[in-house]
Amino acid sequence: MAKKLVAAFDVGGTSVKAALLDEDLTVVERLREPTARSGDGATTADLVVDQIARLTERMGAVSAAGVVVPGIVDEEAGVARFSANLGWREVPLGALLAERLPVPVAFGHDVTAGGLAEFRLGAARGYSGAVVIPVGTGIAGALLLDGRPYRAGGQAGEIGHIDVGHELRCGCGAIGCLEAIASASAIARRFRDRTGRAADGGQQVVDAARAGDPDAAVVLKEALDALAKGIRTVVTMLAPEVVVLGGGLFAAGPFVLDPVRERLSANLTFQRMPELRVAELGDEAGNLGAGLMALELMR
Amino acid sequence: MAKKLVAAFDVGGTSVKAALLDEDLTVVERLREPTARSGDGATTADLVVDQIARLTERMGAVSAAGVVVPGIVDEEAGVARFSANLGWREVPLGALLAERLPVPVAFGHDVTAGGLAEFRLGAARGYSGAVVIPVGTGIAGALLLDGRPYRAGGQAGEIGHIDVGHELRCGCGAIGCLEAIASASAIARRFRDRTGRAADGGQQVVDAARAGDPDAAVVLKEALDALAKGIRTVVTMLAPEVVVLGGGLFAAGPFVLDPVRERLSANLTFQRMPELRVAELGDEAGNLGAGLMALELMR
Repeated sequence: MAKKLVAAFDVGGTSVKAALLDEDLTVVERLREPTARSGDGATTADLVVDQIARLTERMGAVSAAGVVVPGIVDEEAGVARFSANLGWREVPLGALLAERLPVPVAFGHDVTAGGLAEFRLGAARGYSGAVVIPVGTGIAGALLLDGRPYRAGGQAGEIGHIDVGHELRCGCGAIGCLEAIASASAIARRFRDRTGRAADGGQQVVDAARAGDPDAAVVLKEALDALAKGIRTVVTMLAPEVVVLGGGLFAAGPFVLDPVRERLSANLTFQRMPELRVAELGDEAGNLGAGLMALELMR
Repeated sequence: MAKKLVAAFDVGGTSVKAALLDEDLTVVERLREPTARSGDGATTADLVVDQIARLTERMGAVSAAGVVVPGIVDEEAGVARFSANLGWREVPLGALLAERLPVPVAFGHDVTAGGLAEFRLGAARGYSGAVVIPVGTGIAGALLLDGRPYRAGGQAGEIGHIDVGHELRCGCGAIGCLEAIASASAIARRFRDRTGRAADGGQQVVDAARAGDPDAAVVLKEALDALAKGIRTVVTMLAPEVVVLGGGLFAAGPFVLDPVRERLSANLTFQRMPELRVAELGDEAGNLGAGLMALELMR
């Protein structure tokens, strides 16, 4: 008998990543399109739902679908409460998708889904407690506690907004937030501010630091020290067995992970030191997580 | 038919509080004894197990028992990993109690049990997510997430050791821990250091502040501001619906709770403001939690 298939969608502000997955989460087909926009450039829920319906149809016979979106997402209520990237507030996306798609559909949060994928299939596989931290434009967190995602209606895991004690103002309005000093964007911005030289993103600063640029090294060190401080707080509160760091920055592997590990270890007193790992699923984590959620619907 | 009864024990460094409870958690009898010690003043697990066995016998026909102890407690393994107050390390108390008592016995952690009691019977009743923070000699935390205690083998919830950004050294060895500035003992110590005047405990400093003493007011304000900072971190990470503050300090009610609420509210940006409440069960929370655990054995 042929394996059943599921369609997985990871909706972002720029593009929609789609994947056709079989029951073993093997990727059978990948599609990627710019996120649908109206003539005035706005992204509406209706346009995105249409886009997902069309892509699902194109994939052929699927048994279920999983759709994940960024921002604050209340999975239980099926509501995208807020997304800065998509300009959404209080969109009942779960219901809209259920109306429009011909198969059962699971609706969720991109970071949580990515964390779930790392937990079941990636760097946190085999542990019962994990915190997965994607470091990108912002810094988010997926909490996997006692084997389950902990969500609190989409409000939990805002690791990027832990106060790590600096004087910079965050986009959220507070001072001292982790992501204001340690996100990939913050690293690039701070490098530009310090040197007057361009940096497209955090990875470029990592490359410069590795090549011996002292300014890049300082900016990166401040970011990784802050990250270690934030992780110390996570460990003090939740004592995960493993902390997984993701995002393009950590593609540099030990060059960025080792300083975080050393600083974290030095900052702990009685707390249990977790394993520190680099995410394994990269860009695909959101799709795989959406696929996992879709498969769970079929149980 | 007569109600079944359970024996509940809350073992501390100074005293053992025992209670005979019926199935509705009504206290039928209370007993309190100094914690058993040998001739040289040491408390051993064997002495405490003997003491609990004797007290259980004295209570008459009980169907189950619950025993909670302080420190780092691995409830699943039945091991008291560490208790500074009792001088214990890696004591298999669950097994020792099971051998010695004639009834099924639940073994657990005092703070978690107290939190569970507030969650089921007290100030956090009716919520699905709560953090219960007893402020005493130290500052601990019981995490009730999605309706269940989250423990991580006894390592979770160390709210007293969140870095809130001050220069004082904590008993754990780190700098900046919440409990080094905001525990009842820290408040009393800082008042003495500042004024040269005696203060038996945090409550006395609260009383002095209420009576208009400016030094007491400053010390108290610094403690409550730090507490609000620590709670901001808890909210950012876990988004509980309610935060319950316990310990003698909070007997002063709105005089101490209102400043924490105001400061917390001012510190939040996008985060959901939780309810802030004073614990309702006081000294009895540990016994009631031990009773709840014993009753669960009988299900």
